[in-house]
Amino acid sequence: MKMFKSDNTSGVHPKIMEAIIDANEGYAHAYGEDETTKKAEGKIRELLGCEADVFFVTTGTAANVIGLMGLLRNYEGIVAAETAHINVDECGAMEKFAGNKIIQVPNREGKISIDDIEPLLEVIGDEHSVQPRVISISQTTEMGTLYTVEEIRALVDFAHENNMLLHVDGARIANAVEALGTTLKEMITDTGVDLLSFGGTKNGMMMGEAIVSLKSEFGRGYLFHRKQGMQLVSKMRYISAQFIAYLEDDLWIENARNANQMGKYLAERISGQEGVSLYSPVSTNMVFAFMDKGLIEHLLKNFKFYVTDPSQGQVRFVTSYDITKEDVDEFVEYIIRYNNK
Amino acid sequence: MKMFKSDNTSGVHPKIMEAIIDANEGYAHAYGEDETTKKAEGKIRELLGCEADVFFVTTGTAANVIGLMGLLRNYEGIVAAETAHINVDECGAMEKFAGNKIIQVPNREGKISIDDIEPLLEVIGDEHSVQPRVISISQTTEMGTLYTVEEIRALVDFAHENNMLLHVDGARIANAVEALGTTLKEMITDTGVDLLSFGGTKNGMMMGEAIVSLKSEFGRGYLFHRKQGMQLVSKMRYISAQFIAYLEDDLWIENARNANQMGKYLAERISGQEGVSLYSPVSTNMVFAFMDKGLIEHLLKNFKFYVTDPSQGQVRFVTSYDITKEDVDEFVEYIIRYNNK
Amino acid sequence: MKMFKSDNTSGVHPKIMEAIIDANEGYAHAYGEDETTKKAEGKIRELLGCEADVFFVTTGTAANVIGLMGLLRNYEGIVAAETAHINVDECGAMEKFAGNKIIQVPNREGKISIDDIEPLLEVIGDEHSVQPRVISISQTTEMGTLYTVEEIRALVDFAHENNMLLHVDGARIANAVEALGTTLKEMITDTGVDLLSFGGTKNGMMMGEAIVSLKSEFGRGYLFHRKQGMQLVSKMRYISAQFIAYLEDDLWIENARNANQMGKYLAERISGQEGVSLYSPVSTNMVFAFMDKGLIEHLLKNFKFYVTDPSQGQVRFVTSYDITKEDVDEFVEYIIRYNNK
Amino acid sequence: MKMFKSDNTSGVHPKIMEAIIDANEGYAHAYGEDETTKKAEGKIRELLGCEADVFFVTTGTAANVIGLMGLLRNYEGIVAAETAHINVDECGAMEKFAGNKIIQVPNREGKISIDDIEPLLEVIGDEHSVQPRVISISQTTEMGTLYTVEEIRALVDFAHENNMLLHVDGARIANAVEALGTTLKEMITDTGVDLLSFGGTKNGMMMGEAIVSLKSEFGRGYLFHRKQGMQLVSKMRYISAQFIAYLEDDLWIENARNANQMGKYLAERISGQEGVSLYSPVSTNMVFAFMDKGLIEHLLKNFKFYVTDPSQGQVRFVTSYDITKEDVDEFVEYIIRYNNK
Repeated sequence: MKMFKSDNTSGVHPKIMEAIIDANEGYAHAYGEDETTKKAEGKIRELLGCEADVFFVTTGTAANVIGLMGLLRNYEGIVAAETAHINVDECGAMEKFAGNKIIQVPNREGKISIDDIEPLLEVIGDEHSVQPRVISISQTTEMGTLYTVEEIRALVDFAHENNMLLHVDGARIANAVEALGTTLKEMITDTGVDLLSFGGTKNGMMMGEAIVSLKSEFGRGYLFHRKQGMQLVSKMRYISAQFIAYLEDDLWIENARNANQMGKYLAERISGQEGVSLYSPVSTNMVFAFMDKGLIEHLLKNFKFYVTDPSQGQVRFVTSYDITKEDVDEFVEYIIRYNNK
Repeated sequence: MKMFKSDNTSGVHPKIMEAIIDANEGYAHAYGEDETTKKAEGKIRELLGCEADVFFVTTGTAANVIGLMGLLRNYEGIVAAETAHINVDECGAMEKFAGNKIIQVPNREGKISIDDIEPLLEVIGDEHSVQPRVISISQTTEMGTLYTVEEIRALVDFAHENNMLLHVDGARIANAVEALGTTLKEMITDTGVDLLSFGGTKNGMMMGEAIVSLKSEFGRGYLFHRKQGMQLVSKMRYISAQFIAYLEDDLWIENARNANQMGKYLAERISGQEGVSLYSPVSTNMVFAFMDKGLIEHLLKNFKFYVTDPSQGQVRFVTSYDITKEDVDEFVEYIIRYNNK
Repeated sequence: MKMFKSDNTSGVHPKIMEAIIDANEGYAHAYGEDETTKKAEGKIRELLGCEADVFFVTTGTAANVIGLMGLLRNYEGIVAAETAHINVDECGAMEKFAGNKIIQVPNREGKISIDDIEPLLEVIGDEHSVQPRVISISQTTEMGTLYTVEEIRALVDFAHENNMLLHVDGARIANAVEALGTTLKEMITDTGVDLLSFGGTKNGMMMGEAIVSLKSEFGRGYLFHRKQGMQLVSKMRYISAQFIAYLEDDLWIENARNANQMGKYLAERISGQEGVSLYSPVSTNMVFAFMDKGLIEHLLKNFKFYVTDPSQGQVRFVTSYDITKEDVDEFVEYIIRYNNK
Repeated sequence: MKMFKSDNTSGVHPKIMEAIIDANEGYAHAYGEDETTKKAEGKIRELLGCEADVFFVTTGTAANVIGLMGLLRNYEGIVAAETAHINVDECGAMEKFAGNKIIQVPNREGKISIDDIEPLLEVIGDEHSVQPRVISISQTTEMGTLYTVEEIRALVDFAHENNMLLHVDGARIANAVEALGTTLKEMITDTGVDLLSFGGTKNGMMMGEAIVSLKSEFGRGYLFHRKQGMQLVSKMRYISAQFIAYLEDDLWIENARNANQMGKYLAERISGQEGVSLYSPVSTNMVFAFMDKGLIEHLLKNFKFYVTDPSQGQVRFVTSYDITKEDVDEFVEYIIRYNNK
């Protein structure tokens, strides 16, 4: 059964699996001192066109929390949208492990507005308040929306003017880069982003995310933060090998392209159906919609997807890198048949 | 080049790699709700012969820290040998992430003695002191030594009589079970152990450790502790599949057997050589020895191993599950040639 | 100069100072094992009419954070109004020290509405989300408003029906008890509140707050939480003596009465003045108003008060236990003179 | 009843109490922005002869933990004697609140030896190990011993040569300064100490310790660390006033002198008695001895002191700033009478 629940219900892309198998040759230094890891780190630096420090971890939560921790003193906080993954989907890891407060701002279709951050700066210097120090945005956002490159640059500029830093939670950054027709370098390096959580798992890898630190003064600390964060995988070559295959020949963009196209195709196909209304325009591989409750119940018998707000009948579909037109058509067929019966 | 540095420089056992490839079929629920994970958890329960709660994570540090955290209140501490992995090799993860103090006791060839724990209990009830609550032992210990089943039972009994719990750091538990000719059930379940970190990575897996909670009152909390601990891998089937292959047909014991035999063989072969003296008798796949510094330097040009105390010429060799007699012989040949030149 | 900045700009009530002086007799056991402390704890129990566990600390932040920590596991969170002191005025102590997330709900004139909590319960059992476990309210709220006894009972009932607990941040609880014409027993014990931060400093004490645990199962842990929380004062008799005097002959209610009356008197006097409009009705000793910016500037030359929102001209006045009618009149005189010039 | 249990069983020195009473005049800015606090901070700077940053807190544990926290990143550790207060008497506050590991070294009569620190530096740069960053010594030590000024300078030099910092837990620093006949400036500033916990409570104050940061780059952070550490007392003038009186006319040295003299006198008087043997020479106001168990039991009926090791009959006496010769004589009389009966 194909699922529209999340892009992590898909398996591993064949080329990536092959790379894992190939990596299983002989002995290798543990803890990331192997050649495969050095090569994979280099690949990411190449993509960014700069001397970033790269640290592989196994989950997106770890990339976010350990990454952010490295930028912060105890009394400094992270400004993030109330809908941010770090705020609602990481079981309080930021607060427990890093000990830093997330300062919530309203979610403007999943995005942060500078207008909402500005008033927060009044507490700077006041010891009663957590000091805003990092702005964290998700690209693609949890609502499937995108920041343009210009919007990211504006946020970075605003951050730097106010002695703050910018973090991008890029669990689905491939989808964003593809959808905007830009490059990672243009979106991240050239805009001046300070820290990136570079995701792979949701776009065809088995397991692998990278903490990418673009400011050299923070780089070295992550060696220790990662180990202390329980994320120093000993046989790291098996993660690194995935990244090499993922980035080679633009596989990551190709995977994202299919996911995005299928997202739009799904949106297009369901939008005309009875009992269905799109919640918002679709930019990537996430489709939010309202559906009649009877229809939802019917579909859940044969497909998996999230009902994000049961009382309102709000649902979320995610189209993976390996979903096909036929999969979408089959799904829509179920809707049509339900409506016609 | 074969290495004697650690068992995690080896690759993945072919049968386990095959299981990973086989798991790459179709869609599966994420976050451990898939069938492969349920089956793997069941396998561990079967081995233990009891209703343990099982939670997969990606590193041994995570298994230890998240596992122990689940047993403790903030002001409770863990009694462990000064040489314990949690005390010296986890970059303070226990203190930072869990926030609990490790109360060190002397290392008696890597083991803990009840005589050293008893005086610690005088602080029970005194709010100035961290309250000893868990005894944590490593089996196999970091010195390559073993607790007998009777010794574990005695420690469990002592713990329980004093309102404490017993944790076993089993990063190399396969080697211990094999070396003692016992079963996991006899060693862990029947003795009354409360919590086990069940390791796989060091014995032929790619990546995979399990938090095994044998007391039902603690079980449920780990669902949340693991996620908050940044260790809830989304495509968990790829870890679970490894465990199934690892435990099937006693592959884990078979791997450990070769590692242990090669440890003894290495010890036997080097013990007679000039400039070499064994530090202690060898029970498993870890060999500690003193070596002349010139010899150490010479060997490091062609082999990898740890010099655990450079000033004393103390070295550690670890023989992996896939090391061969020929590998050992080749190594010893280098010693002989050096001595004869 | 009298101040309207906060009730902690006032000094110590003479009767309390006298008690401190009287306590300075001879030797006494340290760390709260002295007779004065036992007596003070008993006084609070008496007031509550139940067997509460009482632990003195030196700041309101400590009472809140240590108190809440004792109720929570790592992955459990506190539901609080966005305006709550623990959320905005404690520099992230809850997140850093306790490690628990504050789950914000909208502020309804400083108060929490059950309607806003209900939707939060959907995440119960979902390991991706912090689990709501405690509802924390401030009484008096940070906006100077009050929960009626019935409202507290409703919140407690709602909490208990949903396996949650209720905490009251009572930094200004004396003002609330006085203003509502009720008793501490009726407001806290009889409604079923689980944990109270009982404040003294803002109402005439020198320094002293109490963690009051009304559920016996949590009581013992606080002995350790307080010490670990760096709040076990060695010469505790000097805090305890204050509490005894504070509670004797209803001094705490008497102090609150004057503060509350002066709050209302100030509100009454300024509400008719040009360039001044009250923000909300006044229940206790906090008066929120909007003022013309010129007037604010003029007044700040001679009086101290908070400008809570400079862009809107919102200000806050707090009338202390020892403020007099003459003090208020003098202040209003300044307004009148400014308007007439 | 006079006690020999700890110097915090004594009351407040009359001159300090007077200062508290005098401080109770009119309104004052809260949170340390008052004039009294500024003056008290200046007094400490004057004593040190340098531009230190000074932050008052209410307990010694808070001074140590918050002070050390300000110097450390998460993965950095504190080298301290196994007997250090931060290691055994603070209920794990360092580990829970700061999250930093204490790296224990042997206790050489309460003191640290550079020889024991040197081997710890081998882990520098190794991400598996907590990185030693601060050396923390107690002056006076928990065993009543003293570091000479030269010894402190040697430790500071060693620390600085190895990119480390030196902290002095000065809960009883007055006793040390007096006993060594030196000044605070010579002992702390001139030797290059980086951080001092300057204690007052144990030497005649009611409650008051100071975090004294001598390196300007760390200073500002403490404003926030203290608040987050739940130690920002609102009516701070009452702590500051104590410090002013404490430091004026060398009262702190005078108090320490009596305490030290009485310590030596007690040692001298009991050392000749039957059933008593001094454990070590006495430098300050702490006397450690072995006593016959019958004698201990007898004395405990009328006096309070700590039995530090019941099985060995080891006891500790502390002579407070206000203990008199008559008090000591009375105590010795009890010993003599017991022996003669």
